[in-house]
Parts: sequence; structure tokens; C-alpha cells
Amino acid sequence: LCPAGVLPLCRRPPAWDRAARPPPGLPLAPCRAFSDNKIQVELDESSGVAMMKFKSPPVNSLSLEFLTEFSIGLEKLENNRACRGVIITSAVPKIFSSGLDITEMCGKSMEHYAEFWRAVQELWLRLYGSNMVTVAAVNGSSPAGGCLVALSCDYRIMAENPKFSIGLNEAQLGIVAPFWFKDTFVNVVGHRTAERSLQLGSLHPAPEAHRLGLVDELVPEEKLMEKAAAVMAQWLALPDHARQLTKTMMRKSVLDRLVAHREEDIKNFITFISKESIQKSLRMYMEMLKKRKS
Amino acid sequence: LCPAGVLPLCRRPPAWDRAARPPPGLPLAPCRAFSDNKIQVELDESSGVAMMKFKSPPVNSLSLEFLTEFSIGLEKLENNRACRGVIITSAVPKIFSSGLDITEMCGKSMEHYAEFWRAVQELWLRLYGSNMVTVAAVNGSSPAGGCLVALSCDYRIMAENPKFSIGLNEAQLGIVAPFWFKDTFVNVVGHRTAERSLQLGSLHPAPEAHRLGLVDELVPEEKLMEKAAAVMAQWLALPDHARQLTKTMMRKSVLDRLVAHREEDIKNFITFISKESIQKSLRMYMEMLKKRKS
Amino acid sequence: LCPAGVLPLCRRPPAWDRAARPPPGLPLAPCRAFSDNKIQVELDESSGVAMMKFKSPPVNSLSLEFLTEFSIGLEKLENNRACRGVIITSAVPKIFSSGLDITEMCGKSMEHYAEFWRAVQELWLRLYGSNMVTVAAVNGSSPAGGCLVALSCDYRIMAENPKFSIGLNEAQLGIVAPFWFKDTFVNVVGHRTAERSLQLGSLHPAPEAHRLGLVDELVPEEKLMEKAAAVMAQWLALPDHARQLTKTMMRKSVLDRLVAHREEDIKNFITFISKESIQKSLRMYMEMLKKRKS
Repeated sequence: LCPAGVLPLCRRPPAWDRAARPPPGLPLAPCRAFSDNKIQVELDESSGVAMMKFKSPPVNSLSLEFLTEFSIGLEKLENNRACRGVIITSAVPKIFSSGLDITEMCGKSMEHYAEFWRAVQELWLRLYGSNMVTVAAVNGSSPAGGCLVALSCDYRIMAENPKFSIGLNEAQLGIVAPFWFKDTFVNVVGHRTAERSLQLGSLHPAPEAHRLGLVDELVPEEKLMEKAAAVMAQWLALPDHARQLTKTMMRKSVLDRLVAHREEDIKNFITFISKESIQKSLRMYMEMLKKRKS
Repeated sequence: LCPAGVLPLCRRPPAWDRAARPPPGLPLAPCRAFSDNKIQVELDESSGVAMMKFKSPPVNSLSLEFLTEFSIGLEKLENNRACRGVIITSAVPKIFSSGLDITEMCGKSMEHYAEFWRAVQELWLRLYGSNMVTVAAVNGSSPAGGCLVALSCDYRIMAENPKFSIGLNEAQLGIVAPFWFKDTFVNVVGHRTAERSLQLGSLHPAPEAHRLGLVDELVPEEKLMEKAAAVMAQWLALPDHARQLTKTMMRKSVLDRLVAHREEDIKNFITFISKESIQKSLRMYMEMLKKRKS
Repeated sequence: LCPAGVLPLCRRPPAWDRAARPPPGLPLAPCRAFSDNKIQVELDESSGVAMMKFKSPPVNSLSLEFLTEFSIGLEKLENNRACRGVIITSAVPKIFSSGLDITEMCGKSMEHYAEFWRAVQELWLRLYGSNMVTVAAVNGSSPAGGCLVALSCDYRIMAENPKFSIGLNEAQLGIVAPFWFKDTFVNVVGHRTAERSLQLGSLHPAPEAHRLGLVDELVPEEKLMEKAAAVMAQWLALPDHARQLTKTMMRKSVLDRLVAHREEDIKNFITFISKESIQKSLRMYMEMLKKRKS
């Protein structure tokens, strides 16, 4: 059912990327496996499936460095004709990703806040707009930005451990998820569930996350990678070109909204995050985290 | 988890209100309890939670007088720093609110229709756009405008009595719910459920309303107020500022739509309601209600 | 509850139709039953309900001829004051409709592609925007365009046979459902279900289709027509005028989107379908179908 004839057409960068950037300067050299500091990437050329494993203990925080490595890793795979899909998971026990690194948002310069926020946007634009099939194998808790990473994939499988939770809990910290986090969330769970969950800053235990549609499937943790591979094979059975155009059709309006308001969104973030009241609450939150650890 | 630092920022009027009105002339004097004709309002300053109880027998119709009192009551609470949330319920047995008062729409002048419709809009703009946490404790049937009041809150708890029903049943009367009733409904139950329910003018018994997501929770009637207080406490555990900004983000586009088309919407209402065919069907409906009573 | 006073107002053509076309030239002569080649139409004037039965073996393909007859049939009923609702079903065992006729899209001229696509658009605009109550009695499989026909009705009842499946499976053929197929689908099942189902080109067995909300109800095949009549009676109990205005309110933005981009959509279709890679995959698909038959 998948005519080979359509395959050669399929690996183009997404529309927002083509419009917004100069011709890619990155080498298109064949990459089989590359591992930098924070994310381990392995590509199985026989299946066309890459694995991205977060390995930035203790909690896979999305620091500026992590985000940059994540974006570059995705771009390399996107430009690699041998790669058609990517499975995203964690090498750190019990945690998928704890989300945006609060230390990047606390006591830093305006320039730093701008650079950091641009990196968060960049990662989301790449991941939500990826031409590859993207499967999140959520093998641990995944609050805030970690949840966004999962929400931006095509499919979410979570370990059925009720101790693992997932959600956009920004409101709990006294901060607000930006509109494109919200748009991504609404596209997955619908308006009502998103409204309630965002206002309460809910972290949903895995079974509840499944009930709400926040994740598509729960499996025992030891079956997670096997299941992710099976789901990936199912999605890769479709001709890439038609699947990609369909994905673009579904996600374009939400991607375009950020592209159109990117600089404004950065300014909003800087204004908000540099308020003394917000800085104070972030410092208190970090203190609390430190105490909890010790 | 709720840094006090963000609290002082939170009690601003919603954006539509700031833009559209002259500086508030209402007294900001501390109000603990005030009760006019149709709605009893009590504020518990220790918890920051107000209770609004509809007490306009026989059916808590939303007359011009009721709507005006409701809007002013909400505005007073909104401007009172001691108040962070409001629970809306009924003091009339078996009925939450029967919706818009049909006598206001029948055999009156164009000016009256305009004034009435503006009051309906005003109430919705205040309630759907409220910065307070709003919980509907639906302790009786709630058709049409009564359903809108519940839909405009942040959370809906309904007495699990299957004799109580709720829905936007305007189509049954030969009239049409305005677009912002529809938008509010779609935001709660999604497009498909709204389309079917609005076209059929369905009144959903409590269990069905719960299944459709029209209400969030069912409890035995005697537990309703206790549950409402518990839900309120859960929502108030969040820092107000972040919660309010999140709420605005979710509801702004729908609120803005009415603000942008307010006068047009009034004109449409007047044109529609003054049609002889509509007047005739409303008269017939009122006759039927009178006969049913006797 | 249905004041007769509003009935005389109700049978106007939908807004997109009034704007786009010259005054109707079609005869308004009373039609009771007419049957052309491919669709049998019977109107029961006592109930105001018409039955449209697809009888174009082997699989009720939506050929140019079929689509034209379908559109004209709908227009005749729409203009007939005696007709208030239509039930759409199939006279061919095991198949509702197999969707767009691939032979119309393969090896033909640009002019033919344009004419064909305009006919597909026309059918959808008429059906999704119909003022009549439309009920799909899906008594067999219904892929791609067949699914669109069902999705465009007000209510879908499907025979509960798990061998019958339904879905927008275009991606399986290497082609892409146009945006208005997608919009119609999203309005029924929501964004997430639509995104996943469209990307995978899923054909959902009846029970799964019901679980996803793609069809509203499953009944044993022998009860299908009885159930369809009962549902129709329920919808016709509402005053037409209010129901129609409500339907328009729910569907207008999606209808308007195609009306505004109709020519562009035709051009896109022609460009896409005349690509050699797409032609090749359609030829392969037809070969496969032929082999499967023999």
C-alpha cells in the first residue's frame, strides 16, 4: 500500500524553516552515531530510526546547552536521508525531563534571557514541525518543558508507573506557560482539559494522563522501548511524503503563530521573568528544591 | 509552592473591562455581606471566598433587574482585594436558574430589548472574564441562560439528581443561542457535542451532562456545598497572578470576539426577537408554561 | 414545544449558496421519487423525509457522474418545501461508498481534473451546508470520500459489523486529504484524533469508529433503517428555522474557508495529482485492487 514512488520527495525541511533561515550551513555528512555531552543519539540505518536519549543528570533540565544540543541533533537527523523517525527517551532513571532549567531564568542578564528563550522556541519549532516521525517514550516524570517535549511528538507512550507524572505545571511556580505551549496542549487534549490543567498547574500521574489523552498509551516500563519501536514501525509503514504533508496541515497554523510573534514572545518573556516578584518566587522555588534534596 | 511575592499583582480587572469603561466609580469600601433583592452575597474574608446565592423565586429568571444586580455584585467582589473566589448557587429548591426571562423579550420596545441584551452581554463578559476563581454549585435544573452561567465558571459541580437537567435548549423555543453562548459551550464540551446538543436544544439530565463534560463532577445534593468549598480551596492554592494570566490566555479570544461585535450582536438580537413569528412562538411558550403551572 | 409560527421561514438555501450563484434555474416542481443511474431518491411527503440510496456497484465510487447526480439530487430536495430531512445509505451490500473514483484522477487531462475536483467541492458544500437534517445510515465500509460523505451529515449511525470500516485513509495511498476534509473531520472527532488518524490513514472498524466519535451510534445491520428513521424524527421535532441557524453557526467558518479558497484548492489538486510520482502510485494502487479482485 506504500508506493515507493512517493518516497524520494519526502525529506524537505518544514515550511517555517525554509522561509526563516539562510541556506543550511550544516554538513550533510553521513552520521551514524554521535554523542555530545547531554544527549546520546544513535541511528539505525537499516530501519531509518534514530534514538535520542537524554543523559544529563540529575533531571535532564533543559538548559541553554541542552536545548542547543537537542536542536542541532534534530537538525542533523532531519537532514540525514537515512533517518525517517526518532524515538525520544531518557537515560536517567525515573525522570524524562524536568523541563526548563530554572537557573537559566534566575539572576541572569536580559541578553541571557533572550538567548535562552530563543533556544526554547527553536527546539519547539524543530520538534513540533519535524518531518520525521517522532515518538516520545516517557520513562519517568515529565513536568513543564519536559511535558512540552512529549506533547510535540507524534505519539506518546508512558511507563505505567503511577509515581511518574506529567503536565504543564508552570502555574504552580507562579509563572505562565507561553501561548504556544498552550496551543500544543490544546491540540492534544482539547480546550477544556487544557484550561483546567493549566490553571491548576496539574501534574497528572501516568494513569490520569492516559485518561485525559495527554499520553496515548501506557505500558510496563520494561516494555517501553519495544512498544516505541513497534509504534514507530507502524507510522513508518506510511509513505513519508503524504504523512508529512498531513502533519504540516495539522500543525502549521500553530507553528506559524509563533513564527509570526517570535520577537514579541521573547520580549514578553524577558519582561515577565525579570520582574522582582517573579525572580523572588523562582528563588524560593529553587531553595525548596535544594532543601528537598538534602 | 505559592510564593507570596506574586500575590499583590493579581487583582486587576480583565482587559476588556479596562479598555471599554471609564474609571470605576463604584465604592471600594469593604463589603462583607450585601443582599439586595435577588441575589444574596456573603464574603468569608478569612478564606477569601464569596458565596452568591440566587434567591429570585420561582425559577431565578435572568431578568434585567437580576442581571444588573448580578453584574454589580460580581464587580464589587472583583474590586474587593479580600475576595479571591466566588461560589455561585441557588437558594431556590430544584432550580439553579431557568435562564433569560422571556417576559423581557416579549412585547417590549426596541430600546428595552437593547438594554436587556446589553445586560446579558455584560454579565457574561464579567463572569467568563472574571479574575476570581468561579465555581458553579448547580443544585437544580439549569436550562439556556442558566446553563451559560454555569459554563462561564471555572468549574461545575452538579447535584447528581437525574431529575435535574442542564443545557442550551434555545432551539426548542424556536430561538438561536448567540455565537458567544456557542463559543463558551464549544470551549467546554468540544465542537461535535456542542453542534449536536445545540441543534437538538438538548436538556441533559445530570448523569448525561457529566458524561459529556458539560459538568465536571456530580455529588449527592447534600454534599454539594462542601465539595464546592473543597474545589475552591484547591484552585486558591495556586498563586493568583499566574492562574489569572493563564485563564485570560485560554478565554481571551472568545471574550474579544463579543467585545468586537457587541453593538452588531445587539442589533441582531433586536431584529430577530422582534419578528412577529418569534414573538408568536415566545407567547405560545409562555402560555404553555402558565398552563403547566396550574 | 415547536411553535408552528417559525416553520414558514425555514427553507432558505445556505449562505454560501445564495452568495455564489445566480438565481436557481431548477424547476421547483413537486418531486416525489426520482431515480437516475446511480442514486435512488424517494421522498415520503407525509414525514418530509427523503431517502437517498447509492446504487452504483461494485463500490459506489464517487465518479464525476455520481457526484453530479448526488449534488443535483440534494439541490432538488433542498428546494422542495415538502422535504425537511434526508437519510443517506447504500443499496450495495457491504459498502457505503469507496470514496473518490481513482480512475477520474489517473491519466486524465488537467481540464478533467479541474472539473472533477470542482464536483467534489460542490457536493461537500451542498451536503455539509445543507439546511435539511442529514442522517448517514452507514451500512458498509466507507473509506476516504465515503467517510467524508458520512462526516458531512448531522448524525452517523453505522452497522455494528466489525468487518465494516470507516476513515480518511488517503495517506495510505500516498495522497493527502484536502484541508476541508480535515476541517470536517476535526469538527467531529477533535484535533488529536484527527491528526493521528489522518497521518496513519487509518480505517477504523465500526466499534473503534464509535469509540473515537467518528460515528454516533452502532446498531445491528437489520435495525439500521429503523434507527435512522427514529433519529430523523427526533431531529425533525425541532423547529426548522432555529435548527438551521444553529447548524449554520456551527459550520459556517469551515464552509467559508473553502468558498474563499476554491480556485486555489482546485489548482493545488491539479498540481499534486499530475505529479508523475503520484500518478505512478495511483496506478500501482489500481493494479493492486484489480489483482485483489481476481
